[in-house]
Amino acid sequence: MLKQPTALVEALRSGSVRALARGISMVEENAPGAVELLKEAFPHTGKATVIGVTGSPGAGKSSLVDRMVGSFRRAGHRVGVIAVDPSSAYSGGAILGDRIRMQEHALDDGVFIRSMATRGCLGGLSRASADAIDLMDTAGYDPVIVETVGVGQDEIEVVRAADAVCVVLVPGMGDDIQAIKAGILEIADLFVINKADKPGADRLITDLEYMLSLASGPQNFRPEILKTVAVRNEGVEELCRGIQEFIRSADDSRKDRRRKERAEARFRTILSERLSARVMEKVFQGQDLERLLDRIADRSTDPYTAVGQVLARVEVR
Amino acid sequence: MLKQPTALVEALRSGSVRALARGISMVEENAPGAVELLKEAFPHTGKATVIGVTGSPGAGKSSLVDRMVGSFRRAGHRVGVIAVDPSSAYSGGAILGDRIRMQEHALDDGVFIRSMATRGCLGGLSRASADAIDLMDTAGYDPVIVETVGVGQDEIEVVRAADAVCVVLVPGMGDDIQAIKAGILEIADLFVINKADKPGADRLITDLEYMLSLASGPQNFRPEILKTVAVRNEGVEELCRGIQEFIRSADDSRKDRRRKERAEARFRTILSERLSARVMEKVFQGQDLERLLDRIADRSTDPYTAVGQVLARVEVR
Repeated sequence: MLKQPTALVEALRSGSVRALARGISMVEENAPGAVELLKEAFPHTGKATVIGVTGSPGAGKSSLVDRMVGSFRRAGHRVGVIAVDPSSAYSGGAILGDRIRMQEHALDDGVFIRSMATRGCLGGLSRASADAIDLMDTAGYDPVIVETVGVGQDEIEVVRAADAVCVVLVPGMGDDIQAIKAGILEIADLFVINKADKPGADRLITDLEYMLSLASGPQNFRPEILKTVAVRNEGVEELCRGIQEFIRSADDSRKDRRRKERAEARFRTILSERLSARVMEKVFQGQDLERLLDRIADRSTDPYTAVGQVLARVEVR
Repeated sequence: MLKQPTALVEALRSGSVRALARGISMVEENAPGAVELLKEAFPHTGKATVIGVTGSPGAGKSSLVDRMVGSFRRAGHRVGVIAVDPSSAYSGGAILGDRIRMQEHALDDGVFIRSMATRGCLGGLSRASADAIDLMDTAGYDPVIVETVGVGQDEIEVVRAADAVCVVLVPGMGDDIQAIKAGILEIADLFVINKADKPGADRLITDLEYMLSLASGPQNFRPEILKTVAVRNEGVEELCRGIQEFIRSADDSRKDRRRKERAEARFRTILSERLSARVMEKVFQGQDLERLLDRIADRSTDPYTAVGQVLARVEVR
């Protein structure tokens, strides 16, 4: 049975792992009470540091996050991890293998790990992951690490919710420069060269420094580049310190701009999701939608005319 | 000056390259007349074969597409190419380097190449690229090749508009299996192992075949695996024939399902985009939105309450 939002928020704040798991499921599924829960949790949020970790598949992000969790645990933090895989609507088991590596933390009450995939998540992943961050924040996890599987636009939206975004690169992944330039240059607060013991690490750093010297970032901000070998736990303490240092030292205008961007993205995402859901529900009953989609599919009507007919029924007071 | 939609559709159909370039800019920018243009073009669409090409950055997709264009040209086709880079909101020049390779086709009237990025594109890229496909289709380009830069969720949405989706992999890109499993298994109609002369190609194929044998695809459909070395133009003719063969032989229920999925995705995307735009425009004037976003950013209101206030003003007849 679902608890009332107020009771659930109390349970979250008292550190109940079950309450947190249930709360995240509710926001994933857009369950009744999810919005109320988030509203009631909101005053208790804003305390956790959110760390985003993104980069190409195969860059060793899961191992790295695993080691970061260990490092933060040793420093006495309770750590939340959200592993986001926008692609796994298509390959359900994608996350499993990675998650198994995290099992060493499975019995540690101070670590909460949650995977989120498109499958099982109604609406956008960036909305649901931002909601999950709020719930972990309410439950006292700090930092909350948000890890993505790939580096597409959705992943970028997901990690933009972070106070510090780490972009993980590895030497020798085909055409390094292509991997770097695929849109991740400007979102990085820190670059992590993982598997830094492999050949090509220094060349990758040189290439990266060159690209960064060309890029005209905001106020000439230049992300730091750190080396790690996650499987041997090398450089991980330095990375965690580097992240904390970055957050401490980031200037206020940068922080404000980030906060504002994040507020706008979140507002627009939630509005778009809830607006469409409400209009679809009111306009279409049962078979109506199927019939309309069939007409679009067989090209007897065009999608813009179909949308126009729906819009004609919407009034804004 | 903008032409009237009817005149523009006529110009498109007569093969005007300028009309096509202008039409695509209109749909990208959601310019006045764009929707009318798409509605009027719609009856002339449905003729072109749409080929999607996706895969990790560095897999050599641009070179491959370049060679495919050459192959289709030799067979007498007029070819349209849409290169989609969802990430380049953040690194504007991302596409440029790739596009330069395509310059050999620059003077060929039978080839139309267009890059699309988040920057400069109002609303979703999957919506805008589907619109651009319709315009190229209207203008008589067949096939239309849609190429993505990365393999995130947005890229997957973009290539789902294709009749045949080619997923390009290369040997030796770090952890191959990770690259494969990142959500691209189920969307592939054909796998292309590019740079197939590199070490590890055969192991990659073995791994891939093993993964495909585990996956329970619809009706036990098993995508073909083809080898290419794009830079030496090896295997490209075979790939183009393989694509045509796939489209010819795909069973009707698979085609119907795809068409229906595509119609639904497109309808929902357009609805969501236009609905939000209209409601935002009517609810917020000037500084109102800024003030609201500031309140969310400084946590004096939560985004769900803010959205609730907007939704309260929306009525569906």
